[in-house]
Amino acid sequence: MSERSVFFLSDQTGVTAETLGHSLLTQFEGQKFRQVTLPFIDSDDKAHEAVEKINTAAGKEGARPLVFSTLVQDEFRAVVRQSEGLYLDIFDVFLEPLEKELQQKASHTAGRAHGMSDIESYMKRIEATNFALANDDGGVTRNYEMADVILIGVSRSGKTPTCLYLALQYGVYAANFPLTDEELDNGTLPDFLVNEKEKLFGLTIAPTRLQQIRKERRALGKYSSAQQVRYELREAQKIFKKYGIPHVDTTEFSVEEIASRILNSTGVERRVRP
Amino acid sequence: MSERSVFFLSDQTGVTAETLGHSLLTQFEGQKFRQVTLPFIDSDDKAHEAVEKINTAAGKEGARPLVFSTLVQDEFRAVVRQSEGLYLDIFDVFLEPLEKELQQKASHTAGRAHGMSDIESYMKRIEATNFALANDDGGVTRNYEMADVILIGVSRSGKTPTCLYLALQYGVYAANFPLTDEELDNGTLPDFLVNEKEKLFGLTIAPTRLQQIRKERRALGKYSSAQQVRYELREAQKIFKKYGIPHVDTTEFSVEEIASRILNSTGVERRVRP
Repeated sequence: MSERSVFFLSDQTGVTAETLGHSLLTQFEGQKFRQVTLPFIDSDDKAHEAVEKINTAAGKEGARPLVFSTLVQDEFRAVVRQSEGLYLDIFDVFLEPLEKELQQKASHTAGRAHGMSDIESYMKRIEATNFALANDDGGVTRNYEMADVILIGVSRSGKTPTCLYLALQYGVYAANFPLTDEELDNGTLPDFLVNEKEKLFGLTIAPTRLQQIRKERRALGKYSSAQQVRYELREAQKIFKKYGIPHVDTTEFSVEEIASRILNSTGVERRVRP
Repeated sequence: MSERSVFFLSDQTGVTAETLGHSLLTQFEGQKFRQVTLPFIDSDDKAHEAVEKINTAAGKEGARPLVFSTLVQDEFRAVVRQSEGLYLDIFDVFLEPLEKELQQKASHTAGRAHGMSDIESYMKRIEATNFALANDDGGVTRNYEMADVILIGVSRSGKTPTCLYLALQYGVYAANFPLTDEELDNGTLPDFLVNEKEKLFGLTIAPTRLQQIRKERRALGKYSSAQQVRYELREAQKIFKKYGIPHVDTTEFSVEEIASRILNSTGVERRVRP
């Protein structure tokens, strides 16, 4: 099957168009898509350049490219609408019912208003990121009294990226502590964790997947052996059970999904919204 | 003006519904929205719960809540459609034209297929994140030959969160190096950076904003004084000019926007797609 191009057009970063388009495309298995993001379309020239790129792809592939657009300025939308692609316009579809419901005309201006609220949410994300970095891997800093959530799990179960994502996306203060031989052999958690028991959340993962991930880091030795990996995961599971710690199996999930599941399960409030 | 509730419904994390909804809502200034995400709606019970929450908000607020849905399973969509909210269904609108164009029925199954490609992109993000952490703040590790991009700028200009975002979202290998007195006073970059000049990208920021951010960290002293902040930013700008380093002013942008602008300006390829 030949590839088909998919274009994401935006006067901003294109993240909205990408996110939406990706969600929709996963509904069509077996298709091959070449994804191209064309962000910051904020001039007539750039709009015409986008049309050219779409038409070139159309000519090469012999199939209409799919075009997801979040452009809000009517003049540029009018230009890109003329391309040979299948034009899917997010604003066309949703703005009218929203205008009617809110009894207000959409501003049709590109870009978001950047007032104090943005500085505030930027600061919150930065602070949360600094917190995650300082409280990563059970390090020297353990400001656990300030944490919204403390992730625990064996090495390479996904703790660090999940903490960083929680910080960057939601401004949530997430610390993490690795379960090592000290905890796993005794089946007990240190007091400084038990004292914050209601903040603990466990990550677990399928043994074969963990082995695969660890082998990328260190191919040989006990660390990535099937036996060790199975042992650690089994003992970690016992600890989760003993202390009644909620946990999620990260095997099938992306970092975004793990983060979202943690918020959903713990009820921790987002400090900022995307 | 009273608040109006906005619900994001999903059988997954809700990130797509949130992203889309947020983009649309920024078009209506002056409105106050209370945003609620209801993720993982994967049962009849949960769909009915969602309806109850929407109807409760409708009763309290005396205005129809806005409901952005990315639910794909028809049975649950049928349930939430009955709520008193204004129902905006992403799939309703776009799946039909896509089905027609691709000559394939949408699978209408919740969740993405998690095959090897996901493990691969997960590993790429993790590796990129580890790279960003190891090469943060000009630290001991300087694997600059492996970097896709090296961000430079004064303290608190946004380097660390941008590197982490580039890693987590796009799998891009981003290092960062802080411009300190050593570089600023002499107006020169160290050789190990000059050797990688084509990878350098500068971050700058408005003096008042930088001062504000630094004061959050250390309220008093030279570090957050207006004079020092202006000096550093002016000298950094000279360095960007001297070496011909592309740069972006981060004052008005979110981390996502900065990251997207860097990719767009440098042409660095994303290693993974959201």
